[in-house]
Amino acid sequence: MKNLKGALMFGQSGGPTSVINSSAAGVFIEALKHSDKITKVYGAAHGIKGILDENFYDIGKEDPKELELLKYTPSSSLGSVRYKLKKVTDDETDYKRILEVFKKYDVRYFFYNGGNDSMDTCNKVSKYLAQNGYECNIIGVPKTIDNDLCGTDHCPGYASAAKYVSTTLMELNLDAKVYNTGLVTIVEVMGRNAGWLTAAAALASYKGLGPDLIYLPETPFDIDKFVADVKAVCEKNNDKCIAVVSEGIKNKDGKYIGEFVSSATDLFGHAQLGGVCFALANIVKARLGVKVRPIEFSLLQRCAAHLASAIDVEEAFEAGAAAVKFALAGETDQMVAIIREEKNGKYSSVMKLVSLSEAANTEKKIPAGWVTNNGTGLSKEFIDYALPIIQGDSKAPLEDGLPRFAKLKKVSGKK
Amino acid sequence: MKNLKGALMFGQSGGPTSVINSSAAGVFIEALKHSDKITKVYGAAHGIKGILDENFYDIGKEDPKELELLKYTPSSSLGSVRYKLKKVTDDETDYKRILEVFKKYDVRYFFYNGGNDSMDTCNKVSKYLAQNGYECNIIGVPKTIDNDLCGTDHCPGYASAAKYVSTTLMELNLDAKVYNTGLVTIVEVMGRNAGWLTAAAALASYKGLGPDLIYLPETPFDIDKFVADVKAVCEKNNDKCIAVVSEGIKNKDGKYIGEFVSSATDLFGHAQLGGVCFALANIVKARLGVKVRPIEFSLLQRCAAHLASAIDVEEAFEAGAAAVKFALAGETDQMVAIIREEKNGKYSSVMKLVSLSEAANTEKKIPAGWVTNNGTGLSKEFIDYALPIIQGDSKAPLEDGLPRFAKLKKVSGKK
Repeated sequence: MKNLKGALMFGQSGGPTSVINSSAAGVFIEALKHSDKITKVYGAAHGIKGILDENFYDIGKEDPKELELLKYTPSSSLGSVRYKLKKVTDDETDYKRILEVFKKYDVRYFFYNGGNDSMDTCNKVSKYLAQNGYECNIIGVPKTIDNDLCGTDHCPGYASAAKYVSTTLMELNLDAKVYNTGLVTIVEVMGRNAGWLTAAAALASYKGLGPDLIYLPETPFDIDKFVADVKAVCEKNNDKCIAVVSEGIKNKDGKYIGEFVSSATDLFGHAQLGGVCFALANIVKARLGVKVRPIEFSLLQRCAAHLASAIDVEEAFEAGAAAVKFALAGETDQMVAIIREEKNGKYSSVMKLVSLSEAANTEKKIPAGWVTNNGTGLSKEFIDYALPIIQGDSKAPLEDGLPRFAKLKKVSGKK
Repeated sequence: MKNLKGALMFGQSGGPTSVINSSAAGVFIEALKHSDKITKVYGAAHGIKGILDENFYDIGKEDPKELELLKYTPSSSLGSVRYKLKKVTDDETDYKRILEVFKKYDVRYFFYNGGNDSMDTCNKVSKYLAQNGYECNIIGVPKTIDNDLCGTDHCPGYASAAKYVSTTLMELNLDAKVYNTGLVTIVEVMGRNAGWLTAAAALASYKGLGPDLIYLPETPFDIDKFVADVKAVCEKNNDKCIAVVSEGIKNKDGKYIGEFVSSATDLFGHAQLGGVCFALANIVKARLGVKVRPIEFSLLQRCAAHLASAIDVEEAFEAGAAAVKFALAGETDQMVAIIREEKNGKYSSVMKLVSLSEAANTEKKIPAGWVTNNGTGLSKEFIDYALPIIQGDSKAPLEDGLPRFAKLKKVSGKK
């Protein structure tokens, strides 16, 4: 519990979200209020890579109005990165370099914003600096549309993506059923191992305009059963069926169905997915002889800031601001966690801390008991969990009928 | 110019839009005010097919609040159809049946809402009834995201789809450029022969967050040139490039590039397109060795009522209401047209009429002079044309954080 004075470094990492910059705004706006303890505020270009390369921006030089607009600006304004630190016992090079840079710029506050892999990076840096006697308060700020970080009720970014998925499915439901001819629509949603975002499709069903079938990565996926499920819906519903599948659906042996389409892997060794809806569409078309339309939500689901949840925007901001407040109070080696509360029957939340070790590299999945309808639906528990956090609209002001996103000057902070 | 008394029949036809129901609301709400002349208001299920099958709804039985919500409900609430009437000289069956049904229900006002093919249907029915001495005032209500109807400044449905395309591209621009590694993003937009909707991508470029390259169906598409264009952008831009292509891009011989992917045809004999972005992605990946992400906006671009243009919602409503007012004043055999006006430097519009013969089966394309940058950009004339009509937000009220769309009772009007 150290009370420190020095510079602050903030980095964004992993896949961006609609509200990741809201957390950046929370960190920056809060930090700039504390010039007595925080002497400089830096934003790293492309996360940990920017620190290694001494490539970061002096946030104190930005227009405060633009920092405010960051709240409503999607994607990672500082640039993101997928860079995995090796184990320190295998290769200490990067760690030494980070320590060197932190010393040179007197960085005493470090905040890293991301998902599982980013919390792993944050955790490794935290442990290394502590072991080497360098005083620096380090707090992870959660972020992931996958919603799979442990220790937090949900992750900033999830609710807005869930609102996109559910709203868009309601609209698609109306569109895909418009003709007097049959159509099977297969929608693919992101989420490698956890089905939280795919499950959000059930919110549309709860409102009466959702898909007929939902397939999560948590439930083993069988292609024959899938075709039979679609056939059964078509038979009772004029050859119309909407199915939603996670990009991460796997067969009973744990092999990604999407690997039948592509076998590329990303830098973390994860299978590079996406496109499984097209493979399934071909199979359904061939076996059932119906018209099929595959729709991949692709990047749209993670950058649709125009459809952000107001609760998510605020919580993302508060998570960033809370990281600064906790660190100023001497906390370190922790991740900010959102704790759900209910006040007078109304949803509310507070920010607490969980240890980085607990948050890093573990994945929170959908409880098995929440999966219903022979693996194709979600229970009321899920609706009660997800519905309160997608409430409210919050988005960038319009200029010429289009969003006015933040424009940062990005003045180099390099000495 | 007949002043008639009798029932009103309204049908929706062709591909739905975000605001097609706003025109339905305009027709219904205006018509229900005139019970002295309009004795019944019917909504045909699946357009002309519902008339042939005596399958239509008694709109007077609907809750007025739900009719109001129709303004903000995407897709065709009555059901749409793609049904092409044969030439009356080839086969009179359908025409005789329509006359029979109109006589049975004393239909004296007929409104048909759709694009080119629907105006053709409307025109054929109008001419047939007139030739057979059946008095009925017939007005077409324009609708198409393709924006290719002649005689009207623009078509209801276009501006909302354009707002979706431009807003989404701004968000994608931020997302697709987030990593410090290369990525070519190829986005596919609807529009078979006219590039109006694809051109809307230029609005995002106008705001500084658009694609680097835009390809319209009006300009012959050469795959080698396309790859060279992408390569040139990548070379000056860290291997990052965003290209937007119309589904309807054609080679110099007029053959759809998308036909290399699929050769299915729809009921009108049009090539069934979609998916050309995937073919182009494979070509770019193979030739340039860069990471490529194809994104198809698919149905999303035509049903995203949550992102509708307020001007479009109002004009779609007014076009429907104007059809009723014109018909009550004795007009027939016409299509409602939006005429652009400027009042004190501010955009405004009025509804006038053009003959159905003029509107049917002709396609309005992007003027050649508006295409710039060696076939990859749009001129200021296009921005000045499109920007005023995407202004303002207008959408369904939220219930549980999700849109509350209209729920019609759909009481059968069959005698």
